[in-house]
Order: sequence, then C-alpha cells, then structure tokens
Amino acid sequence: MTEFLDYSDPQQRPRFTGLATFFRLPYVEDFEASPPDIGLIGVPYDGGVTNRPGPRHGPREVRNQSSLIRRVNQATGAAPFAAATVSDIGDAWVKRPFDLTAAHAEIEDFYARVHAAGIRPLTCGGDHSVTLPILRAIAKDGPLGMIHIDAHCDTGDDYLGSRFHHGAPFKIAVDEGLLDPAKVVQIGIRGTLFAPEMWAFSYASGMRVMKIEEVEERGWRACIEEAVGIVGSAPAYVSFDIDSLDPAFAPGTGTPEAGGLTMREAQGMVRALAALDIRGADMVEVSPPYDVGGITALNGATIMFELLCAMTGGRSA
Amino acid sequence: MTEFLDYSDPQQRPRFTGLATFFRLPYVEDFEASPPDIGLIGVPYDGGVTNRPGPRHGPREVRNQSSLIRRVNQATGAAPFAAATVSDIGDAWVKRPFDLTAAHAEIEDFYARVHAAGIRPLTCGGDHSVTLPILRAIAKDGPLGMIHIDAHCDTGDDYLGSRFHHGAPFKIAVDEGLLDPAKVVQIGIRGTLFAPEMWAFSYASGMRVMKIEEVEERGWRACIEEAVGIVGSAPAYVSFDIDSLDPAFAPGTGTPEAGGLTMREAQGMVRALAALDIRGADMVEVSPPYDVGGITALNGATIMFELLCAMTGGRSA
Amino acid sequence: MTEFLDYSDPQQRPRFTGLATFFRLPYVEDFEASPPDIGLIGVPYDGGVTNRPGPRHGPREVRNQSSLIRRVNQATGAAPFAAATVSDIGDAWVKRPFDLTAAHAEIEDFYARVHAAGIRPLTCGGDHSVTLPILRAIAKDGPLGMIHIDAHCDTGDDYLGSRFHHGAPFKIAVDEGLLDPAKVVQIGIRGTLFAPEMWAFSYASGMRVMKIEEVEERGWRACIEEAVGIVGSAPAYVSFDIDSLDPAFAPGTGTPEAGGLTMREAQGMVRALAALDIRGADMVEVSPPYDVGGITALNGATIMFELLCAMTGGRSA
Amino acid sequence: MTEFLDYSDPQQRPRFTGLATFFRLPYVEDFEASPPDIGLIGVPYDGGVTNRPGPRHGPREVRNQSSLIRRVNQATGAAPFAAATVSDIGDAWVKRPFDLTAAHAEIEDFYARVHAAGIRPLTCGGDHSVTLPILRAIAKDGPLGMIHIDAHCDTGDDYLGSRFHHGAPFKIAVDEGLLDPAKVVQIGIRGTLFAPEMWAFSYASGMRVMKIEEVEERGWRACIEEAVGIVGSAPAYVSFDIDSLDPAFAPGTGTPEAGGLTMREAQGMVRALAALDIRGADMVEVSPPYDVGGITALNGATIMFELLCAMTGGRSA
Amino acid sequence: MTEFLDYSDPQQRPRFTGLATFFRLPYVEDFEASPPDIGLIGVPYDGGVTNRPGPRHGPREVRNQSSLIRRVNQATGAAPFAAATVSDIGDAWVKRPFDLTAAHAEIEDFYARVHAAGIRPLTCGGDHSVTLPILRAIAKDGPLGMIHIDAHCDTGDDYLGSRFHHGAPFKIAVDEGLLDPAKVVQIGIRGTLFAPEMWAFSYASGMRVMKIEEVEERGWRACIEEAVGIVGSAPAYVSFDIDSLDPAFAPGTGTPEAGGLTMREAQGMVRALAALDIRGADMVEVSPPYDVGGITALNGATIMFELLCAMTGGRSA
Amino acid sequence: MTEFLDYSDPQQRPRFTGLATFFRLPYVEDFEASPPDIGLIGVPYDGGVTNRPGPRHGPREVRNQSSLIRRVNQATGAAPFAAATVSDIGDAWVKRPFDLTAAHAEIEDFYARVHAAGIRPLTCGGDHSVTLPILRAIAKDGPLGMIHIDAHCDTGDDYLGSRFHHGAPFKIAVDEGLLDPAKVVQIGIRGTLFAPEMWAFSYASGMRVMKIEEVEERGWRACIEEAVGIVGSAPAYVSFDIDSLDPAFAPGTGTPEAGGLTMREAQGMVRALAALDIRGADMVEVSPPYDVGGITALNGATIMFELLCAMTGGRSA
Repeated sequence: MTEFLDYSDPQQRPRFTGLATFFRLPYVEDFEASPPDIGLIGVPYDGGVTNRPGPRHGPREVRNQSSLIRRVNQATGAAPFAAATVSDIGDAWVKRPFDLTAAHAEIEDFYARVHAAGIRPLTCGGDHSVTLPILRAIAKDGPLGMIHIDAHCDTGDDYLGSRFHHGAPFKIAVDEGLLDPAKVVQIGIRGTLFAPEMWAFSYASGMRVMKIEEVEERGWRACIEEAVGIVGSAPAYVSFDIDSLDPAFAPGTGTPEAGGLTMREAQGMVRALAALDIRGADMVEVSPPYDVGGITALNGATIMFELLCAMTGGRSA
Repeated sequence: MTEFLDYSDPQQRPRFTGLATFFRLPYVEDFEASPPDIGLIGVPYDGGVTNRPGPRHGPREVRNQSSLIRRVNQATGAAPFAAATVSDIGDAWVKRPFDLTAAHAEIEDFYARVHAAGIRPLTCGGDHSVTLPILRAIAKDGPLGMIHIDAHCDTGDDYLGSRFHHGAPFKIAVDEGLLDPAKVVQIGIRGTLFAPEMWAFSYASGMRVMKIEEVEERGWRACIEEAVGIVGSAPAYVSFDIDSLDPAFAPGTGTPEAGGLTMREAQGMVRALAALDIRGADMVEVSPPYDVGGITALNGATIMFELLCAMTGGRSA
Repeated sequence: MTEFLDYSDPQQRPRFTGLATFFRLPYVEDFEASPPDIGLIGVPYDGGVTNRPGPRHGPREVRNQSSLIRRVNQATGAAPFAAATVSDIGDAWVKRPFDLTAAHAEIEDFYARVHAAGIRPLTCGGDHSVTLPILRAIAKDGPLGMIHIDAHCDTGDDYLGSRFHHGAPFKIAVDEGLLDPAKVVQIGIRGTLFAPEMWAFSYASGMRVMKIEEVEERGWRACIEEAVGIVGSAPAYVSFDIDSLDPAFAPGTGTPEAGGLTMREAQGMVRALAALDIRGADMVEVSPPYDVGGITALNGATIMFELLCAMTGGRSA
Repeated sequence: MTEFLDYSDPQQRPRFTGLATFFRLPYVEDFEASPPDIGLIGVPYDGGVTNRPGPRHGPREVRNQSSLIRRVNQATGAAPFAAATVSDIGDAWVKRPFDLTAAHAEIEDFYARVHAAGIRPLTCGGDHSVTLPILRAIAKDGPLGMIHIDAHCDTGDDYLGSRFHHGAPFKIAVDEGLLDPAKVVQIGIRGTLFAPEMWAFSYASGMRVMKIEEVEERGWRACIEEAVGIVGSAPAYVSFDIDSLDPAFAPGTGTPEAGGLTMREAQGMVRALAALDIRGADMVEVSPPYDVGGITALNGATIMFELLCAMTGGRSA
Repeated sequence: MTEFLDYSDPQQRPRFTGLATFFRLPYVEDFEASPPDIGLIGVPYDGGVTNRPGPRHGPREVRNQSSLIRRVNQATGAAPFAAATVSDIGDAWVKRPFDLTAAHAEIEDFYARVHAAGIRPLTCGGDHSVTLPILRAIAKDGPLGMIHIDAHCDTGDDYLGSRFHHGAPFKIAVDEGLLDPAKVVQIGIRGTLFAPEMWAFSYASGMRVMKIEEVEERGWRACIEEAVGIVGSAPAYVSFDIDSLDPAFAPGTGTPEAGGLTMREAQGMVRALAALDIRGADMVEVSPPYDVGGITALNGATIMFELLCAMTGGRSA
Repeated sequence: MTEFLDYSDPQQRPRFTGLATFFRLPYVEDFEASPPDIGLIGVPYDGGVTNRPGPRHGPREVRNQSSLIRRVNQATGAAPFAAATVSDIGDAWVKRPFDLTAAHAEIEDFYARVHAAGIRPLTCGGDHSVTLPILRAIAKDGPLGMIHIDAHCDTGDDYLGSRFHHGAPFKIAVDEGLLDPAKVVQIGIRGTLFAPEMWAFSYASGMRVMKIEEVEERGWRACIEEAVGIVGSAPAYVSFDIDSLDPAFAPGTGTPEAGGLTMREAQGMVRALAALDIRGADMVEVSPPYDVGGITALNGATIMFELLCAMTGGRSA
C-alpha cells in the first residue's frame, strides 16, 4: 500500500490536534498577497435572526468539526484540494453588529475585496441574511442563477421593522438585480406560513419552488436534474441553509422545520451541482448552542466539502 | 406584498415572546362560557408509565415549542385557525396523581365537561393511559373508529398490578364499548415483545395492525389510504404516540423503539386523515427530560398542528 | 395541621401544570385597568449582547422554572404575595429588534405606561442593556440610588459601534441623570479587562465598587450592610446580573466570569435590601441555550422571589 | 511500594469494566444465605414524587458512578470494606408501582427480611417516600433517633390526595412511633413554603431544625456536633436527601432548592456521624434524567461511601 | 389473555430495576463450568481509536439500554432466548491498556477460552480494533467469511505508528488467514479518504464493497441478498460498526460520517443474515460520552438483539 | 474615556470571531525563529488516562473558551501580555499515540526545542502524564521545586502494566532527579484510595501534602503562603490539575473527586505564586466530552491566565 501520510500536512495529523481551520487548510488572512482559487470564509454574524440566535458561533464550530473531513470524496473521487488551491481566508467579522444595515455593508466590503482578488468564496454563516451582501459583492457584473436548498424561501418582506433579516435576502437580491429569478430554484421548502402569500414573491418572480413533498414524490435525483437544467450554463450561486435538513439531522439551527431532507438526499443533490458554473456558495444557519453531539456542525462541514467538490467540477485532480 | 403582520395577534409577534399557549392561541380556562369548535388541552399526567417517566412535563414543553408553528400549512394550504375557532383551554390536571384509577376519573370528568360544551378535544399528553378516560368521555354515544399511530399496540392486559397503565388503554376501550375494533387501525407497530401473544387482543378483536415493515414495503401512502377506507365515515378518534417516530426523531419519550417512522411519513399520514369525521385526537408520550435540542417537543407540536388541519378537514378557511 | 391547599389557586396545583406565568401568578396584559402594586415583566430582548446570545429566551424559561417557588420565604418569613398585589403583566417585547436604539425606545414606552399606572416593575431580562430604558421610564423625577450585583461594572463606553450595548447602561444612566453615582454600589465585580481603565467611569463618578475579593475577605454581610448604608433612604433600583454568580451556579449566561458569588451569598445580600426604598428591580442575562439542567433559570427565579420579598420590605403579610 | 493490585478483586480492575454493582462489591440477591453486616440496597421507585420524576433510575446510575470510589477514605483513614462485610444485595423493586400504599408495603416486606437477617441497610433511593417503609421494617423494637440532611423537613401532611408522598414520611414515622422526635435533627432546611405552617409538625413535635442559614452562620462543624449530641447513644437512622446540596452540586434531583450545602460541608457532617449507633441509612432523590455530567450521581455515591464509613464507626480495619 | 409475567425472570421485572446485564440475562463469569450456546461479551477497550475516544464505556451503557429489549422479535417471530441458551459472560477487560499489542493478546486469550468452551461469542465493543483478536481466537480452523456493516472498510495500513488501530483490523485478518476476502462483503462504506488508495486492499483482495450510494440505489434488500449469496454456506463472522448508521441515529461514536444507514435499513439487513452459519458477531464503536439521549446505545443494543436472532437462525423456539 | 479598541488586535475583536488560539494571541509554529518569553502549548494526548478519556480534546476547547479572557487581571492589575512576549506556539502532538513511552519521548523532544529556544512553557493538557516529559526537558540543569494543585498526589507506581500513566508522573520525576521533593507542595488532595499507602511516596520523600480538609480549616491563604515559603527562591514548576476543583466547577474531567476547591480558592492560590521563580507551568486533564456548558474549559482557560500572570510576576507592564 502506498504510504500517504505526510505529517507536515496538518490534514494528515491526528484530527484533534492543531488550530481548527476549515479542513485544517492553511490560514491566510492576507489573502490578496497570494490569492487561492477558492477562499473559505466564516461570517460570524447573526444579527438578522428572527427567532433562536447563535449562528455567530457557527464558523468556529464548523471549523472544529471539519477536522473530521479528509481529502478525497469517496462517492465521486473528487479531490478538491488537488483540483484547486483552497485556503481558509478568515472571517468577515463585523465591527458594528448592532446595526443590521451597517453590518451588511462591512460584510459586502470584505467580499468585494475577495472578489477583486479573483477568489471564489465558499462561506460558512452566520445567519442567512449574510447571503445578500455576498451577492452584492460578487454579482456586480450581472445577475446570477441560484440553487437554493432551504426549508424557507426567504423571499419575505418587511418583518420586525426591517427589510434585511434572514427571511428576506432573496427578494431584495432580485430587486437589486443580483439574481435572475428565472434561473433560481428553491428546494426543500416546507413548514407553516404566517399567511398564504408569505412566499408569493418566489412564485410571482418566476423562481422554481420545489417543496419537500415534491422531493419525496419525485426523488431527489429527478428534482436536482431539473434544477441543474434550469440554471444551465449561467453563472451561479449555491446557498445551502442547514435548516433544509430535518431537525433529526440538524437540531442546531434557529428556525427548525419538521419533515426535512436527510443528509443522503442533501449530499446527492449537492454532488449533482458539479455541472454548474459556480461563482460562490454558502452553508448557513448552523447554531452551535442548539446543537447536540456536534452533528449539525459535522453535517454543515460535510456539505461545505461537497460544495467544494462541486465548485471544482468534481475533478479528481 | 400584502402586509400580513398584525401585532395584536400573539401568533405574529416574535416567537420567543409572551406566554406559551398552544400555537400562541387565546387561553380560555372557562371554556364553557364561550366554547370554541376545537379545544387544545394538556394532560400533565404520567402515572401510567412502565419505564422512563416524564410526560407530565409534556404539555408545557410542547406549548413552548409550538410557538414555532405559524398559521397556514404550506403542504396543503390548510388554515385551521381560520377554518374553525380554536383555543387553548388549559390542562386536565389531576388532584390525586398517586392513584391511577382516581386520576383517570378526574381526567374523564374534565373531558365530559368539554364534550358537553360541544368542543372537540385535541390533547397533548401525558402518557398514553390518558386516552382511555378521554374516550370514556367522548364515546358515550357509541363506539368510535380509530387511527392509532404508535410503536406499540397498547392492547395489553394486567401489568405491574394494574389494568390501566399506558400499555393497556385500547383493550379496555374495546371491552367498554368505546372503540369498534373493526374500525381500528394500528400503524407503525414494532419492537420486541415479552411474549408472542402480547398484542394478541388486537388481532383477535379484528383491529388492522400495520407493522413498520409493512409501512416500509408498501409505502405510507398505500397504508394510510387503506386505513382511511377501514374507518370510513364512522365517527373517529386519532391517537398519535410520539414513540411511533424513530428515536432519531423522538429521543424524548419513555419507551423508545428503534426503527420507527420518519417525520415525513408521519406528516403525510396525518394529512390523509382530513377525509375522516374526527371527534377527537391526541398526541402523547413526549417526555421532555429525555429530549435533546427540543426536537421531540417540536415534532410533537408539528403533529398537533397537522392533526388540527385534519380535524378541520384540511380547509383553507 | 392547617389545610392550606386551595386548588383554585394555581400556585398550589402540581407544579408542572398550567401556563408558566411568573410564580404561577395571574397574567394581566391589560395592567392599566387594575394595576397591581408590583408588576412582573419579561423583556425578551438580547440585541445588546457582545458575546454569546440567548437572553431573549430568558423570560419564558425563568417563568417555567419559577413554578418551583412557593409562597413564603422560609429564611425570613416574608410573604410577598400577601404583602402586596403582584401580577405577571406580560412582556415588554420589541417590534424592531434589529435596531438597538429603536428597541430601547419601545421598552421605555412600555415601562412609562407601567410607571404611570403606579406599578413598581420587577423585570426578568433580556440582556443588561434593557436596564437603561427601564431607568429612563421610572427615574423621571430624579436620580435613583442603585444596588448593582454583577461580574461587570457595565459602565463602559462605545464598543462595536454602539453606546448602548449590555456593557454600558450605567455610564449612560449617570450621564442622563437617572442614577446618582454617589448612591450606587457595584458588588461582585471581577474578571479580566480589555484595559485598566475599562471601568474607570465607575470609580471617577463616585460609585462604590466592591470586587469579589472584597466580598470574600470581608464577607457578604459586611459588604451589603455598607452598601445599604450608602443608598440609605434614597429611592433605589436593584439590578441583579445572573453572571454575578459563579459559572458553576449560572452556566447559562453570555459573559461568564470564573470565581463568582455562590447562591447563598447572593440570597443573603438580596434579603438585606428589604431596608431600602426600592422603586424597581431586575434580574437579567439568563441565557437558556447555555443553561444546563435548568439551574441558571431556577436560580434566576429564586433571585426574583428574593427581590420581591425585598420590594415588599420583607413583610410577612 | 507495596503491591496492592489484585485483579481478582473487581474493585481493583479498570473502573469502566464489569457490571456496575455498588462500589463493585459482590452482588448477593440471596442475602439470607450468608448475610453481610451491611447490605447496600437500591429502591428504584419514585411513585411518591410531587414534581419532577426520575429517582426510579437512581440506583442504576449511582451504582455506575460508584465505580469511581476506591477502598479507603483518605480524609479519615476509614476502610469500611475491611471493617465490615458489605455486599450489594440488590433492589427492593416494586411489583405494583401504580399504588403508592401497596408499593410501600412491598418495600417494607423486603426490609423486614433484611432486618430479620441481621443486616444493617444502606439504601439508595428512589424518592424520599421510601424511607417510611424502611423505618417501619427496622424500627419495630422502638423509635429511632435520626440525622436528616435535606432541603425539606418532609413532615408535611396530605397533599395531592395522599398522606404518603415524598414530602411526608417523617410526620407519619413519628405518628407511628418509628422516630423519637426529641432525637431527630433536620439540617439544611431552606426554600419557600406553601404556607408558614408547612413544616409546623417538625417544630411542634420537638425536632431540632437547623436551617441552611444556621449552617452558614455557625459552620457545619458546630451544627453537626450539636446534632450528634442530641441523638447521643440512641439507636439512630441517617437520611440524606441529595437535594440538601446546592443545585450546582446536585442538579439531578426533582425538587431543587437554591442556596444549599456544598459537598465539603456535606462530607464533613456525615463523617462526624461515626460516633453514632447507626442502624440504617439512606441517600435518596438522585434523578438521573435531570443530572448533568453525572455529578449528582457521583456525589450521591460519595455520600453513600461516607455513610458506610460512618456506619462502621470510621474504623480503618 | 395468557398470563406471561414471571417475576422470577429479571427480563420481566420493571426495566429500570436490578443490575444491567445484557438483556437482563444471567451473568456467568465462570462460563466454562456451564457454557451457554451463545455468550454475550463486553470489550471495554478503546486503545485503538484514532480520533474521539470513549468506546471503553460502551459495554456498560449498552447493557444499561438493553434493558428496554424484551424477548421476542415482533418483525420475525424470532425468540433467541428460547432458541438457544444465552448468557452475559462478562467483560474481556484488559490489564495492560497502555500497550495496544499486549491488550490485543489479552483479548485473544479470553476469546480462546470462550471458543474452547464451545461458546459462540456476540461482542459489544470497544473500538473496532478488538475484532482482530476475536478473529484470531475463533478462526483458528480456517478463514471465515464476513458481513461487515460499517462506514469504513477498516483495511488500512500503518497509521500513527501502529498496524493495529481501529482502521486496520481486516487487512491484518486477511494477511493472517483469518478471513477469506472472497467471502467478505463490506456494506455502508462512505465518507472522505486521506488518499484514493486508502481502502485499496479491500478491492485488491477481492472483497465486495457496497458503498452507501449502492445501498440507496439498489435498496438494502437487494444488497443484503447479494451479500448473503457471496458468503453462502461458509462459516461466517458478522461485524457491525455503529458508525455505519447516520450520525442522526448514532451520534455517540468516534468517527461519525454523514449520510449513513437508517436503523430500518440496518435492522432489515441484519435480519437477512439468519440464513448464514454465524460463528461469532460483534457490534462496536458505541462511545457513550458523545451519545445524546442514549439513542446510540439503544440502537446498539437493538442491533445486538437482531444479531442474536440471526445467530439462532431466526428460530422462534 | 480612553479609546482602547484596536481592531488590528484579535484580542479586541468580537470574541466569537477568528481562529481560536490561546487568548487570541499570535500563532507561531516556527517559534525558534523569533522566540517569545513564554510559549503557550497544547498537548492533545490522553494515552495515560486510567478511567474516562478525552483530554486529547482539551487544547482545542480551552483555546476556544480562552477567547472570553481579556488583557488585564482586574484583581491584581497584572497585564501579562504587556509584561512579556507571549505566543501560542502550537501543539506538541504525538505521531505514535498507541505507545505511551514513545509518545512521551516525542513530547519531550518538543519541549527540549522550546527550552533550547529560551522559552518558558505554559502547557494545556492532555492528561497529567504529560508533565513528566515536560519536566525531563526543562529540568535538565537540576531538580525543580513544584506547586502541585490536584485531587491526587500522582505519585503512584505501576498500574495497569505501566509506570507512566497519569497517576504516576511525580514519583518518576523524583526518581529521575527532576524534582526536589523537599520543595514540592501538593494541595487539594482528597478522595478515596485503593490502599492506605497509595500516595506513600509523597510522604516518604518529603513532599508537603495539604489535603482539602487542611485547606478548608486553615484557609487557602495560609496554605499557599506556607507553600510559597517551602519552595522559596528555587526554580519552580507549577502543575494545576483541573480535577483539583470540585466537580461542580469542573465536571469535564476524567477522575472527578467530590468535595474539591472552588474557583475563588484556586484563583487566590495561583495569584500568590507570583512570588516564585516559575520556569514552566501546566493546566491539565480538561476533558471536553464530559464538560457541561463549557465551564470546565472556561475555568481551565482562566487558570492558565492566572498562571501567566504569576509567571510574569504579577507585573502590570
């Protein structure tokens, strides 16, 4: 058998050793000096949550659990760290957390620097409101398509006196021309509504909404194939809200909804995205104070690895 | 987008505010003065458990988690609070908890008052023994059909010196003429038995027992369609034991059995019950001391909401 | 023995039954119609926290654990529910939580109504920033003295872009003339500082700061006697931050500091405050997501009961 | 250094191996054949609790944690397993748990057999109601004195329709002539009362009640010395309720009361009881479902070891 | 109904009573005196783990949860305790845990005694490295076939300076002639790899590897039927690593991998093994410190019961 | 008020942001290039534990919780980061964890490099066995004095086939001339013993053993003053085992002993060590899998900060 252990590589050391960077990758705060192809970024911010807080602690704990992930995707052979340069480029942390609009501006500034450096971002939230400033930074050249896996459409409107909370980013993103709703697919939608028209914007704007019942009936494979076809060759963003998973798989989140995706379904769907032209992606809403046994953070780290494989086209080298 | 927020309605306030009534509905202890169509009732009693205790704390914690539920069922469009008047009418609490027979009599008295007021009860247990006094109160005019979703048939006999524990209610209910066994379907049955004949009464009396293996092989949809056909147009009761769910979805219960229902299966089956003439329903055996991350209580609250939709015929208004 | 059980009184029912109001007292949202002497109020707001979030969930869980409290203080004989009319008058909840200043204004409005109705407020936070709007509402007629039991002086200045976070309320309160610093005593102060001058305002303004080491050396009794003497007969406020307790007694809080008060010390000190003219009081920073076994919430409820005894002068009837 | 490891002795094997008997002692269900001096007994019964249940699981978990205890008391040199024969003689389990009176009769029968065999019992509860049938079995020849360490006097009367719940055993025991109230000392009493006269029986009957405030002021040593003097040379029973400890030390119990004993105080006091003529002892109310990190069960096991040292007069061999 | 309760049988007593042996069976340390057909054995050893430790505590907690299991398999009618004599024959505990090779030799010695006594072993780990010494003891007469249900092939090579850790046992077992790789089937394999060739030995040696994706696509029934066909009538071993389950079903393990088996799939597959000639079996890697709500240990106990049914050919008597 | 926030300093950023180094200090793996005065080192190794495992995860979690610590010790004014250069110099991780002797050799090599670079080490364990290789590396020039705060003397002998487990380091260290037993003080000793002579080496060699009862009777101040006098001006090591704390303060450890130190006592004693000539120090045995609410790790981080203050003589700059 080939000797593959190289102790100078932190990824091959015992998994509980060393600092917890994402996947035990090099940590490069000064990313502009030597920009990687893909930058892993934490956004420790949850000022936009409407219910249980905690995603501010998501990046640290997802980094911690990501030490359990190795180098090669056994299901597909994908080897993202060989296929691209990937670094942990630190946190887009916020100096003015008490002001939602100002906080979003700070996050946008960080991603504008990332985008200018030619780095594709893969983000660990934070609450879902942070996707909006990310899109503002990376969709400057024109609207993106999007695969959005979530329990909620997040195309709501004013709530609790703000347009910018975690239930609203995608309506605003369409309004601002950051997303092309005809190329947006929302998968895993379920739960109860304040009113029937709560997610009306999704339907009215032309997004394709696949509720969990559709996933159950047609199977995840048929759904994601249709979704990939809708996005096609357009430049695309992928946003994965951990609350798309059933609470049994993701208790550690702020707005859990019964009856969600299993991890096998979620992994299968993310793997299918390797066909897309992904310009950025995120995994959000892991809330460690509500997690049990670390499984939500582990599942979040696993989804980030699958997203990384997809962003590198599923290539093995 | 329509403005739907009305802060005078507690259901539309931030979900962690205010007292935890079921679904943040009005709390009406004096229900006879102005009876709602459906009354939500807690039975904080677990004197009938044979193993791990705790369901006495179920109503409080299910009420707490039910704040996460909104007004409209996204899967079906059902809007139960618009389709009927629904109130939290308080707890059928027990003054003499140390005497199982006396406790059941107190519970029966409460439900007799509810029934006399023309209110259909939707109950949150408490252990499963409480279904017996509920049936005694509401099946006075003739036996009911029943959909019973559970890991256990609960048609046992004397155990630990009592006929009235949480493993026995349905044999007694048949003996007393409260249930018509030809119109009773038990779904999700599994686990180990003390002896092969442990649930013999179910089979001998003509109940239709669908073990979990049958649900897996035929699919939940075929099973529940058959079940609905069996009950037909008879007046019916629905009893949902949270231990019908797999322990991954419901760790917080006293007699967990490996290999149970998923929430998607459970929700799908309860939705199909909208075709029945439901005279009362319950969700029992949530044991908060054994819960993790509140997921059992959240799933219990979700099942109660689905039961409410079914009790209002799935109507959207 | 006297028969003392009266089941019409929710306080004498089994403790896990019924809705969880503070101490199972009557719940009176429309408090102006029939104002009690003392109103128990939840402030489910934590928009001012700088570290771990969660106190928004404090009022619900403290209400829940407060069911364990009975009617008479065995240590002192105080019977606060006999000595005064006391009600749970609901939550000062916030419609615009994403804007710290606006949120404080909403809270102030609520307390202004309470104050105008002649009700003395006893508050359950929420984070410590909420004490500021409470003081604005009730100290309109002149500055108050204050007993402040806490790990932190909370007299900081701008931090993370805001003056109004949970580490700052008392500097602002002095600046606005709501507190008389010569009659303010801060007890239990400890932990590390960003800079030596972090709490300089406390010292410079004339507050009496008793660090935990002083409590340990002199004993809690000597400390609180001096403190009571400093406040004297001035109208006073009492603010109890649960993080004054050692993390062994209060793990469920956002800014824990090792080496704090025991509950016996804390209870002893609060009992000594019966000599003061207390115009309002609060117990803040219970963060249920970080609690274990409910002990922080139980200790918080116990402190609220002791504060209630002190607010009624320790009277037994 | 002397070689002391003898692997044929389960107490000297790795502590996580083998069956969990109390202190990894021999397990002897048929105790009458070869009676030990002292028998360790579990009473897995909690049918008498008035609030949070769970002590039925106490014996198993205390047995489990007791594996951490070794052979010699370092503070005193006591070596109870050398000073007396001690066995785990199993559980006084109950066949009719749904009937409190019948359950107590079963427990009494078990202890009558133990007493007849000349075995002094050291019990692990179970709820505190079980002390009553124990006393009935072992105090047949005349009333005993008692050291009772607890948060509650447990001398209440009818509550929730029963005389025999866990808040009442000692009034009944006096009524039945099992205890001599002039030789009963209750230590650690605190918390709130339903009514001022709730524990009136203790005072009226001549028991010496030492509230927690007295322990704090005089110190545990002075208190226990007085207590030992009161009991004197009378045959005595020792009952230790784990809720005498502060909730920080014993979260895993059903009726926690803030502001209790530390383990150092509790251990010091139990050690002082070696001067008494102890005929039996118990440690009750450990409720594993509410425990965190096993500390309550570990403290319970430690108290049982200290009781064992006291029952063998603190002898080293 | 037949009276089936016999209180002299610990399996029919209340489930929280008595010592926790496996399935509350007789405990027979001196198994050679009267050897049962099948011996249940704990191996409280985890010196071979490469990541999160804890399986040393597995046997105790699995024994504890196994009290929830009764006598008859409701899905199949199998009654293993009637079909064979089965005892808990104690722990193969280790005197020299700090030396992996020596520890394995001690374990092998224990199993050699078991094998010599004609007892078929059903083991509860401990980490997966313990399967190697078990195979050394029972495969002396020639290589065995094996059904291996796991997230990992465990056919690795040197890692962290040792050949004998929990990721390597099966390569060594083939090298030593204990397993016939042509009759080995590995099911449930998934997760990430350090290098593509990490499990190359499995493929090169001729084992049949069924990754989780294959189980999902073909269904568990087709997979296990093929697997049973591959092993055929050869003498066989069954090794079930609890991390084959999805972390939602088994959080309490040291190397969790997202996207695993459900319990229904696992139970179905184990039931199909009744057709094999099983010479021994194990269930390993339950790590109680990482478990939540005891569900991993309960699922582990359930798998052991299913293995027992398979080892007795699914016979009902 | 002085503006003290400098966002370029990670210590002044929001505490949940960025990588978790010790105290958010610079992370310098290549410490020889620019050696700090004091190096903070993790030793993620627990191969020497005899009971519950887990300290291998200690360094990561203590680093995580250490973000709550700021720059200045409020009790003393000490400002260790101003008084000396301090860096996180990474982990002394082990390549051959399955071989205790080899692992110790690797750790010794790491510390030899640290010592050669002129860096004083402050270590976060890991289990207590790691202190032995540290002493081997830094006591080469002659034996050290030692303040040892612990529940256990750790001067045992062979146990479970090894001399080098976590209960033995200090006997070996004396045997090897690394410690001068006449200048060793052991504080906080308590619990039960396998045999009276278990810690005989401590007494025989001339160490000063202060049991917990002595600390309670004389007070921590008198004890530590005597201890400081015994060590005097000799070069000294400080070893703090987290199990010296009572389990209420440190549930997250492998060998908890009831009745231990409070954090106030522990902090007071460590502060008194500023008078010593400290050549190195450690805080060991934090086991995160057994922690609750992070309090053990937080207390461990706090003790490390106090040790750092002591190592810099309590200087404020």
